[in-house]
Amino acid sequence: MKFVHHPDTALHHPAYYFNRGQMRALPEKPERVGALAALIESRGGALIHPDDYGYAPLAAVHTPAYLAFLESAHARWIAAGDMGEVVIPNVSRMQRTPSYPTGIVGQAGWHTFDTACPIDAHTWTAARAAANAALHATRLVLDGADRAAYALCRPPGHHATRDMAGGFCYLNHVAIAAQSALPVLRARGKAGRVAILDVDVHHGNGTQDIFYDRDDVFFLSVHGDPSEFYPHMAGYAQERGVGAGEGYTLNLPLPIGSDEDTVLATIGKALDAVARYAPDMLFISLGFDTFINDPLAAFGVTTPGFARMGAAIADAGLPTVLVQEGGYAIDDLAANLASFLDGFERTAA
Amino acid sequence: MKFVHHPDTALHHPAYYFNRGQMRALPEKPERVGALAALIESRGGALIHPDDYGYAPLAAVHTPAYLAFLESAHARWIAAGDMGEVVIPNVSRMQRTPSYPTGIVGQAGWHTFDTACPIDAHTWTAARAAANAALHATRLVLDGADRAAYALCRPPGHHATRDMAGGFCYLNHVAIAAQSALPVLRARGKAGRVAILDVDVHHGNGTQDIFYDRDDVFFLSVHGDPSEFYPHMAGYAQERGVGAGEGYTLNLPLPIGSDEDTVLATIGKALDAVARYAPDMLFISLGFDTFINDPLAAFGVTTPGFARMGAAIADAGLPTVLVQEGGYAIDDLAANLASFLDGFERTAA
Repeated sequence: MKFVHHPDTALHHPAYYFNRGQMRALPEKPERVGALAALIESRGGALIHPDDYGYAPLAAVHTPAYLAFLESAHARWIAAGDMGEVVIPNVSRMQRTPSYPTGIVGQAGWHTFDTACPIDAHTWTAARAAANAALHATRLVLDGADRAAYALCRPPGHHATRDMAGGFCYLNHVAIAAQSALPVLRARGKAGRVAILDVDVHHGNGTQDIFYDRDDVFFLSVHGDPSEFYPHMAGYAQERGVGAGEGYTLNLPLPIGSDEDTVLATIGKALDAVARYAPDMLFISLGFDTFINDPLAAFGVTTPGFARMGAAIADAGLPTVLVQEGGYAIDDLAANLASFLDGFERTAA
Repeated sequence: MKFVHHPDTALHHPAYYFNRGQMRALPEKPERVGALAALIESRGGALIHPDDYGYAPLAAVHTPAYLAFLESAHARWIAAGDMGEVVIPNVSRMQRTPSYPTGIVGQAGWHTFDTACPIDAHTWTAARAAANAALHATRLVLDGADRAAYALCRPPGHHATRDMAGGFCYLNHVAIAAQSALPVLRARGKAGRVAILDVDVHHGNGTQDIFYDRDDVFFLSVHGDPSEFYPHMAGYAQERGVGAGEGYTLNLPLPIGSDEDTVLATIGKALDAVARYAPDMLFISLGFDTFINDPLAAFGVTTPGFARMGAAIADAGLPTVLVQEGGYAIDDLAANLASFLDGFERTAA
């Protein structure tokens, strides 16, 4: 297993976000990166510094207007005067025929779907560094040195859609990575299809949205029932894709409070569907917020449970890219990643 | 001119809203009602207490789910625990195929399009009282005692869509009032069409949305250019209606900083279009936030300018219902309404 990480991912550090009627401190803190990086180094894993893959792979998933917004938003926001210190929307696109505004307040609403994606002066730099880590991990797996690679991404990515940030996410790293692999696989005469399995406790609505009408990326997600849980508007079992993508989205929501055995059995069910699809590669949106003591807790996965999860994913026998998403119990993050890697590597060996 | 008002409209008093990245005090204060009511009484106008028109006229414009949400939201929000003291969304409906959530946080996002419509324990009561005032004013005009009536509504209404609150608005009083008049006019063998002219400084996006596909309600709005001004996503000149409604929406956005003569000339242009439409009745979304010293100021209308505006509207010669919308320069509200009424009554007489 190779490990990829860029220290710029720790630069993003918004002072607050807006949630449930109050300003609150972000649970998605820079310290998450330090905890995970230290664990990897303590196991003797080298942290590979990613190359800079530039603009093209980002633009293969996100719109030019959105990328321009992310890059310029904070400076434009501050320049507008009498603003809070980070970009948080106060309007949304919710009109019958929305028109794209030119001002920063309107664009902040256009390019976000919630108030949990504050943008500070370093957000763009950090998100690009994380996308590069996911792209580099993908290239390492495609190059075949190891069957698997882990990208230590932060901020997370799976909630970001083609042109909207949300849920602590800005660039959708796993989508960017999966998209980057497809032309390589096709050029090699492979099937030219990949699966993305999202085991973060929150539905990967951004990833779903990006690939919803396509059959070359199978998106599967096991997550807390969105009827009463973030992201609220997507992740319902009836969402199965549209057009050519119909049947290539699989949502397996579970009741809030589901225990470890239920979560792992459901991930097993998703992996059975992955096997039937027979993709060339498997991408994992790896969140540790299914942990029983996570501050956003909804599920009962224990630290030893993550070893079972890692083993089940390794058992799929596919070239695999692990992309870090959520997980907010900072004191337990290292132990949970260690357990996951132990299970994965024991099975993959 | 008859004047209709219910004191419950002053009960709505949320502690704060979220705007431009910060918690802020609402400029839409209960004191607005007191200032306007006192002015009317000082002119010898009786404040008529409206009848209760019940649920049916609200449901002719708004969805049942939305009305149930407005009525129950605050109690459900507080019961959820660890919430701010008023309902403000932190998510929006922004997904490709959104599913209706059952929880209050998700529903708060579903039924709002911005963070400027905080709901407190009295919002539903106040908004219903204001809708009843608009309905009662409409009935007084239909009954023909006077050619015009004024409904002292608060909170305002013109931003509320069929199923979403926003911009200090919850029930769309002018839409509810206009909709209530149509069957009466048809039953009397009239043309069965009405016009709604919105002279608030902000585009009446909710009213537009409600009638966007219909030709029996002509919606016209003169407002600050939304490309850099609230409501940001709607009110652009290219929005002209759809289907049967194509050509029955007329947006006349003006640059921020437009002076009084420009604003009044543009309202004159809108009134020319109203005359060509030849409606049975005219409804005015009457905001005083075009005032030069309004805290949300964008236009340069002076207190004497409102007399010219009132005269121009009266000069249309139509049965007219004036529905109070915005206007946040509380110390000047009475003088601005007095000036408007002077101009209107002088011309109508």
